Amino acid sequence: MIDPRQHRPEPAPELNRRVWLENLQPTVDAGRWPIKRTVGETVRATVDAVADGHDHLAVDLCWRPLSEAEWRRVPMRPVGNDRWQAEFEIASLEPHVFTAAGRIDRFATWRDALVKKDADGQDVDLELREGEILLRELAARAAPDDRRRLEDAAAALTATLAQADRVTAALDRDLAALARRHDERSRESFHLPEGRVDVNRERAAVGAWYEFFPRSALAEPGATPPGLRAAEARLPEIARMGFDVVYVPPIHPIGRVHRKGPNNQVKAGPDDPGSPWAIGADEGGHKAVHPELGDLDDFDHFVAAAQDHGLEVALDIAFQCAPDHPYVTEHPQWFRHRPDGSIQYAENPPKKYQDIYPLDFESEDWSELWRELLDVVLFWCERGIRIFRVDNPHTKPLAFWRWCIAEVKRHYPESVFLSEAFTRPKLMYALAKLGFDQSYTYFTWRNTSVEIAEYLTEITRPPVSDFFRPNFFANTPDILPEYLQFGGRAAFQVRLVLAATLAASYGIYSGYELCENDALPGREEYLDSEKYELRHRDWNQRGHIRSLVTRVNQIRRENPALWRNDRLRFHAVDNEQLIAYSKSTPDLTNLLLVVANLDPHHRHGGWVEVPLAGFGIGERDVYQVHDLIGEARYLWQGSRNYIELDPAVMPVQIFRIRRRARTEHDFDYFM
Amino acid sequence: MIDPRQHRPEPAPELNRRVWLENLQPTVDAGRWPIKRTVGETVRATVDAVADGHDHLAVDLCWRPLSEAEWRRVPMRPVGNDRWQAEFEIASLEPHVFTAAGRIDRFATWRDALVKKDADGQDVDLELREGEILLRELAARAAPDDRRRLEDAAAALTATLAQADRVTAALDRDLAALARRHDERSRESFHLPEGRVDVNRERAAVGAWYEFFPRSALAEPGATPPGLRAAEARLPEIARMGFDVVYVPPIHPIGRVHRKGPNNQVKAGPDDPGSPWAIGADEGGHKAVHPELGDLDDFDHFVAAAQDHGLEVALDIAFQCAPDHPYVTEHPQWFRHRPDGSIQYAENPPKKYQDIYPLDFESEDWSELWRELLDVVLFWCERGIRIFRVDNPHTKPLAFWRWCIAEVKRHYPESVFLSEAFTRPKLMYALAKLGFDQSYTYFTWRNTSVEIAEYLTEITRPPVSDFFRPNFFANTPDILPEYLQFGGRAAFQVRLVLAATLAASYGIYSGYELCENDALPGREEYLDSEKYELRHRDWNQRGHIRSLVTRVNQIRRENPALWRNDRLRFHAVDNEQLIAYSKSTPDLTNLLLVVANLDPHHRHGGWVEVPLAGFGIGERDVYQVHDLIGEARYLWQGSRNYIELDPAVMPVQIFRIRRRARTEHDFDYFM
Repeated sequence: MIDPRQHRPEPAPELNRRVWLENLQPTVDAGRWPIKRTVGETVRATVDAVADGHDHLAVDLCWRPLSEAEWRRVPMRPVGNDRWQAEFEIASLEPHVFTAAGRIDRFATWRDALVKKDADGQDVDLELREGEILLRELAARAAPDDRRRLEDAAAALTATLAQADRVTAALDRDLAALARRHDERSRESFHLPEGRVDVNRERAAVGAWYEFFPRSALAEPGATPPGLRAAEARLPEIARMGFDVVYVPPIHPIGRVHRKGPNNQVKAGPDDPGSPWAIGADEGGHKAVHPELGDLDDFDHFVAAAQDHGLEVALDIAFQCAPDHPYVTEHPQWFRHRPDGSIQYAENPPKKYQDIYPLDFESEDWSELWRELLDVVLFWCERGIRIFRVDNPHTKPLAFWRWCIAEVKRHYPESVFLSEAFTRPKLMYALAKLGFDQSYTYFTWRNTSVEIAEYLTEITRPPVSDFFRPNFFANTPDILPEYLQFGGRAAFQVRLVLAATLAASYGIYSGYELCENDALPGREEYLDSEKYELRHRDWNQRGHIRSLVTRVNQIRRENPALWRNDRLRFHAVDNEQLIAYSKSTPDLTNLLLVVANLDPHHRHGGWVEVPLAGFGIGERDVYQVHDLIGEARYLWQGSRNYIELDPAVMPVQIFRIRRRARTEHDFDYFM
Repeated sequence: MIDPRQHRPEPAPELNRRVWLENLQPTVDAGRWPIKRTVGETVRATVDAVADGHDHLAVDLCWRPLSEAEWRRVPMRPVGNDRWQAEFEIASLEPHVFTAAGRIDRFATWRDALVKKDADGQDVDLELREGEILLRELAARAAPDDRRRLEDAAAALTATLAQADRVTAALDRDLAALARRHDERSRESFHLPEGRVDVNRERAAVGAWYEFFPRSALAEPGATPPGLRAAEARLPEIARMGFDVVYVPPIHPIGRVHRKGPNNQVKAGPDDPGSPWAIGADEGGHKAVHPELGDLDDFDHFVAAAQDHGLEVALDIAFQCAPDHPYVTEHPQWFRHRPDGSIQYAENPPKKYQDIYPLDFESEDWSELWRELLDVVLFWCERGIRIFRVDNPHTKPLAFWRWCIAEVKRHYPESVFLSEAFTRPKLMYALAKLGFDQSYTYFTWRNTSVEIAEYLTEITRPPVSDFFRPNFFANTPDILPEYLQFGGRAAFQVRLVLAATLAASYGIYSGYELCENDALPGREEYLDSEKYELRHRDWNQRGHIRSLVTRVNQIRRENPALWRNDRLRFHAVDNEQLIAYSKSTPDLTNLLLVVANLDPHHRHGGWVEVPLAGFGIGERDVYQVHDLIGEARYLWQGSRNYIELDPAVMPVQIFRIRRRARTEHDFDYFM
């Protein structure tokens, strides 16, 4: 054995740091993944900081947009139990990084000892001389102005004054700030790893989505191709209802080989349009427009028309091919070949999907395949599209998405990717961590008050809320939930309001506003699904809920409490058929309470527990409760209030709560 | 802007990995710090693994002692919700690392599809041909024996047999194992960062400690220096009581400048011995033995004598100096000098400790200082010491300890460091994370049943239990807790049993067995503390609890349930003055239930809830309850049992619970 005492290892110079930093938050998996924020949003960061001994610490929050080289700094404040906290605001649409820097605050340490000894009646002449030396050291690092002030302060400590006056000079508040500014930082510790922030524009977090099939416009009496031009006729009404995003299923040529007929029949008739997700035919693949919808000019016109109505178009990215997709002949190596020379079609044994060829991400030529798929996204980015709803991302390698989304965002940081993954929880969360900005959720299958509260609590609190942004679709062309199939109009009303107020992003697929609920027996699929046929609708048909949709979207726009999810709270009701929850802005100026009757068939009433303390309302205060749907206003007092909701009238109420601003003899103000 | 579509970035080859691994456990702060285990202990590792699509995964736990280059592998098994689990046993006294490796299990994926299609009545001829190709690929990687078996299996799949027979051939269990063994691993994903394990010998986790001042032997009638030789007379009794470790306060020369007198008086008389923690005088410093205790030969003799009694000696490491420590003249740069040329003594303003000079870890010469302090530890390692109780480690830089302990362990992996940090929680935990093997705790200040259960639950569960090993001292020379001051003999009995059964490591400071409880008024300090004077004791004095100490240590040795903390569980009692908890081995063959009356003055009774299911006992089973202190045995049935404890008799019972092994007509077996 080597004699360790002869070896005398030298400690690395960077070890000589006294402040110990841990547990920087918010981070995802200890910094392995970025948190998500939007421009202008605040990041409240915390870190645990300790050091040996009794010395005072100074901890700074350091942050910067990735494009800047220098840290911006803001002092953190202790919040108890060795935790420090500070905030910074996302400055620009680019990734941000942050960390905490800790050092011994020599001036504060010195001053604290001085005060304690002075209060104890000790002679502190030597301490004051030490203070003078310290301040002169700080002065040496300062620019002329500060230098002079520090030198003056140093001189005051050892001037021929009474001890009490010299101690008082040391306590000057400005001096503390000045000293802190010029503090020795060469032995500062930094938290590693740094925290990272994926920054998005606000639409990644907040938006009302409307999904529709442009080609169904061709079913309208008198419509002729190009379908995208005909579909523009729908845009004014979608805008009038208050939506932000129109999302259209794939607009590409549809395969003819093994094309599916109505209701997913194995054989299509000659006039059946096929599923838009069976992409690719002689006319082209993922970069082409279906001839019946028009050409790229028609597409551009459609996008511009939407924009004129304040609507942004979201495209569908479905990386799979019909058997007659041009890739199949141009790049046969991107598909898996079987021993008989045929190409492997999609399957989930024993089920077969012969109209779809999956791309083989394990092919020898995978690198070229990835680059081509990236190019598809960039192609549509070049045409102005910035929102992509990605079809079944969980059936393509996660590493591919991580790479692809990062590459797109390098050039188009304003792009938004919505993950359409209905799969196991950890896979859904992995997609969110690796870069998807939003995700479909289990919302459609959470119907009871307990289920809803549990699920929403999970996804609206850290760690999940820091990386996973829900988009609550109340229905989709693939999902007509049982609750809607059997609950009638009230069910559509309730689920609309739940989706629109529980989540900052939500959406419906067209037909929802007509309460369409015919399903294939025993399935959650629509009967005569628009996926396989054109569909003509009477938008004014009896029982439609367009006015409620319109009102709810208006409420969303007017109430910033609905623009975020982290302040969602559920409140007790003594009837489990009722659910009550609130959302508020941090300053409580916008405060909404939603109460819904989840039983679409029966009237229910119950006592709702209003969390007065959380709302900033006193036990005896009178507060105004304004039903934003029905427009009625009530005055409430105390925390227990009875609410009754009749599904035959309106199964849900959105209350805006206004606290009394002040009281006069004759009138009340509510804010 | 560069045209991103022209640029065509190439994905890095290592991206082409389909399995996604997250959340490897057990780790501390996501792998930033190692977990702690002892040799022979099992690490149960879990990881979350997902991949795109429906393919089957194979996940291996990979682990190795740091000195080995190759991973050892054991297959992980799915335990639900995409989590996988496997175990490995610590093989040797050196750091270990582990990770998880995931890949697509192509054979299992193929076989699963084959079975489903066959069951559905489909023709699977093509699938069997694909299986043949796959098995031949695997065979190409195998050694001759396995290669032949795989080729035979491949041939069987396409032999001229009925489909049913060929499918059956694919289902062979041995074939699955064989295929797994030769699976393609070039696209395996590994979890990063790897998990790390700090490995200790068992004494780091389990031990009964006895602290005493060897110099007090000189107070015994007729004793003469060298004191260490006289102190050897105490060793047989310490061994007889069943202790494992004798810990002695610093044995070095004691400073004469500003030496403290009895009861910490500022001035010492000429014969006052001074505090052993005021280290250093003309005779030497941290590498010398106090002349009254003897010389290095006497020290070696003491250590050998302890060893002969089965006792291991723990030394005190207190890195601070008396004003006359040789360092002060030899290395004045290691101390902070004040403007008047004096050296800064220790203080916690306004309190002054003029007998102690702290070392200045921020000195320009810090690197030499660190190396010298490391040399002090190595000096005692060379003399055979392997357990160090570090005095106030939280007043020296954490980075120093991290470096120092790592350096010592590189040469002496069997060394054990106990942190004597009574400070804020995060600082205590930081010391544990950076390398201390054990720590003093808040145990002495946790006295009620709620406090004890809360604190123990925190420190015996992950994440804390993975890095923080408690050593429960019932008293120390610095701490005579109020509970002991006022609770009389019963208080000493209860706290002994709590310390010894709640924590796998525990200790007492001599005098405890005599129930010494004279304190300085209003303080937790001993009156006439042995820290400042020699102390003669009558070890047979009335009321001593040596026999209980002996019995409890014997129970600890005989019951492996007490050798670990992670299976500690608290059980409900309907009287809050009573506390009930259990510990057990994983196989439940050793199962202890402790019930204590925390009120040392009054008899208390209550119904204890025995968790039958957790104990593997049926609702109607009769089980034997054996009081290991009083030796009585009872038969209990059902979960609720009444226990009454009288502090005047014995305030605590340690029950060994024996489940009925089987029933015959005439007699019962209990195991």
